Amino acid sequence: MDCIFCKIVRGDIPSVKVYEDHRVFAFMDINPLNEGHLLIIPKAHGATIHDITDADFVAVMSATHKLAAAVKKAVNPEGINIMQLNGAAANQVVPHLHVHIVPRWSGDGLTISEWDPVPGDLEKVKAVGKKIREALP
Amino acid sequence: MDCIFCKIVRGDIPSVKVYEDHRVFAFMDINPLNEGHLLIIPKAHGATIHDITDADFVAVMSATHKLAAAVKKAVNPEGINIMQLNGAAANQVVPHLHVHIVPRWSGDGLTISEWDPVPGDLEKVKAVGKKIREALP
Repeated sequence: MDCIFCKIVRGDIPSVKVYEDHRVFAFMDINPLNEGHLLIIPKAHGATIHDITDADFVAVMSATHKLAAAVKKAVNPEGINIMQLNGAAANQVVPHLHVHIVPRWSGDGLTISEWDPVPGDLEKVKAVGKKIREALP
Repeated sequence: MDCIFCKIVRGDIPSVKVYEDHRVFAFMDINPLNEGHLLIIPKAHGATIHDITDADFVAVMSATHKLAAAVKKAVNPEGINIMQLNGAAANQVVPHLHVHIVPRWSGDGLTISEWDPVPGDLEKVKAVGKKIREALP
């Protein structure tokens, strides 16, 4: 498998590892948006949220929960962004599912989670909500 | 509890509900960034990732995994952003933990997950990684 994150899990590419268990691997982002930016991935390859099991997704998120506490203790950020991007249209770059923990400080200049809320058309929102409910298993 | 999301869970404020189980409630964002934008929250109040149990965080994320599949089926986006913001410095607005599912399309104009990767100072990244490892329980 010619996947850079699979190579990191196998140790074929070096990384600054922060956590590992039987399902999950976590390592520092070498292009950090802020001090303490790290990535949490499942060891089993899957490109997006649509391509991995619930067990792997939950294991990654449980590790994320623990790592967020460790990041808070280690670098004492004012906030934390948890981000998981799926697909090129969502700005995913490496096609192996990964969760970003990005420590945040007021005035850090990042705009990754900044937007002005604009009310939607409620009838349309209701119709889409109905479609999503009906698409659940 | 004068929390708008707690009121939504209790039904004191109406919402377009898409999913509910004993731990989790999910409803449409009425200020959608794109068609299909929804929010997943724990029923138990907690402001941020640092304030809720692992069981609640994992339950919210397992529901998020299922709902992402339903969103894909319902509105067929090209990508999906999963975002969970903690603290005003991370642009969190409502202080009750919530996960955003934001469907994405190429050219939708959203910049919420767009950044240019800039290599960090590797020695500094290693030092911060060590601090985070040591901060784990």
